[in-house]
Amino acid sequence: MTRCVALSGGVGGAKLALGLSKVLPGEDLLVVANTGDDFEHLGLTICPDIDTLLYTLGGIANPKTGWGRAEESWHVLDALKKISGEAWFQLGDKDLSLHMTRTGRLASGAGLNRVTQELAKSLGISHEIIPMCDEPVRTIVETTIGPLPFQHYFVKNRCEPVVTGFQFAGADQATPNPKFIQALKDPALDVVIICPSNPFISIDPILSLPGLKEALALCRAPIVAVSPIVGGHALKGPAAKMLTELGLKSDATAIADHYGDLLDGFVIDTKDADLAASMETENHRILVTNTVMESLDDRISLARDILSFATDLRVAR
Amino acid sequence: MTRCVALSGGVGGAKLALGLSKVLPGEDLLVVANTGDDFEHLGLTICPDIDTLLYTLGGIANPKTGWGRAEESWHVLDALKKISGEAWFQLGDKDLSLHMTRTGRLASGAGLNRVTQELAKSLGISHEIIPMCDEPVRTIVETTIGPLPFQHYFVKNRCEPVVTGFQFAGADQATPNPKFIQALKDPALDVVIICPSNPFISIDPILSLPGLKEALALCRAPIVAVSPIVGGHALKGPAAKMLTELGLKSDATAIADHYGDLLDGFVIDTKDADLAASMETENHRILVTNTVMESLDDRISLARDILSFATDLRVAR
Repeated sequence: MTRCVALSGGVGGAKLALGLSKVLPGEDLLVVANTGDDFEHLGLTICPDIDTLLYTLGGIANPKTGWGRAEESWHVLDALKKISGEAWFQLGDKDLSLHMTRTGRLASGAGLNRVTQELAKSLGISHEIIPMCDEPVRTIVETTIGPLPFQHYFVKNRCEPVVTGFQFAGADQATPNPKFIQALKDPALDVVIICPSNPFISIDPILSLPGLKEALALCRAPIVAVSPIVGGHALKGPAAKMLTELGLKSDATAIADHYGDLLDGFVIDTKDADLAASMETENHRILVTNTVMESLDDRISLARDILSFATDLRVAR
Repeated sequence: MTRCVALSGGVGGAKLALGLSKVLPGEDLLVVANTGDDFEHLGLTICPDIDTLLYTLGGIANPKTGWGRAEESWHVLDALKKISGEAWFQLGDKDLSLHMTRTGRLASGAGLNRVTQELAKSLGISHEIIPMCDEPVRTIVETTIGPLPFQHYFVKNRCEPVVTGFQFAGADQATPNPKFIQALKDPALDVVIICPSNPFISIDPILSLPGLKEALALCRAPIVAVSPIVGGHALKGPAAKMLTELGLKSDATAIADHYGDLLDGFVIDTKDADLAASMETENHRILVTNTVMESLDDRISLARDILSFATDLRVAR
């Protein structure tokens, strides 16, 4: 019986997912990971957002970067630099062992959902992290220098090209994870949380899956998004830069506008408290709280605040 | 203009190939590698015999084992052991960087021959090492417990199952490397050397390629094999064990018999000198010399002895 579904990208989403995992028992939380960032690199299938969630909830994430693993070594990458030019993606030795395990299992015919459950189990994770779908969906970033596969835009080109739009290749042929759809239909569901992830590249790939927007519209639980923009800046990544390049205002309002009618509630940071009054409507409530998650306590506090906000939203209906 | 073609498996073949590379300039030596040992593991295409040749001629082989790389580390394998059971194949960190580079290039559409040339170049190797063919050929070891993919027999089962025969899956659909066939047709070719590799699992996959035996029969250069069996024992690997299990005598004579009419000359170790008289015929000359290659000087001496022997064979014709 899922009480909370969380839609998540990488680092920011994983922070909130960790907070939620500390206040909800395993069966009450379903974390749905974006797989639009996934890519094939040197023969391996790499799923950065799933990996960040696995490492974070497994307690082995690099505390400094938020992505990758703690106590990591870089022997393979160092050797790769000597043998080929394909060393632009940061592949730690421990991280690599997970990509290899995943790729081997996928090659043997297991689906991404099943493989992700196996990896979570091997890392001792009791909360459920699922890919948004089993089929490959690949985000293409449209830029003024042409379309770029996501990781080429994000890592190889360091987000420098000017963004004009996005494609989610394969999304129209994908089937949303059945566990995800089932959870949205569950009358016991308390809340759907859109984590403070980049709306364009972390959440929209999930929303682009066939039937997903309809399933969310029919979902009886409130849908609450947390702004990844605080004080006009993205806490991490290119969200603010993308907003500007797309001709939008780089603030929390633009994020709420992006999700539009999908939302029942929206969470903004105390730094943006002055935006609250103009954003609040009858169908679209605003929670102002600390959304900057520096410590584990911050993550847990935000998780509690959102769950409590969701209770208010349900009562208000 | 190739003067010497050497057919090679892994460690033993690579030792002789190294010796040959020290006495022949780059353009005079073509090393043809068995690819029947190749396999797909954790998403990566691994070519153990090509790798051993690359590392040996690149001067970066592990001097103790003969396979793998010098100054190797094992961080990925250690992490793999924690996350999955698929840690039975020894994958060093540096070694892995080569498998990843290869797999990435193969995934991007380059053939194995081209990829092998690129890897050789990146390792500064001036002699040519080529795969026997671009298509996948996979040795299956037939045993009393059933057919086993080669690496499952060799590594996972430590050569313990009793061998009853061999299959080279895919060989009938493969095309021998054109450079190899061209070299065999070259009137300037001085010698074809069958390295002291296991005849069943290192050389027979090469000989099983369509048209290969015919091309060798038509080749005007003498064909000389070096016995991998010395004093009734294999210097390395399961050759002697296989001979016994197949009901053959475990000595150098059995190796010569195995190759049969293909050979113009056969090289046995001084320890087996007493076998020479009975083996020598008009069409099948025997060279007795030190074939145990412990030092680099041993490798070079054996290379010189074989090239000189080939000259004698050509003169005698």
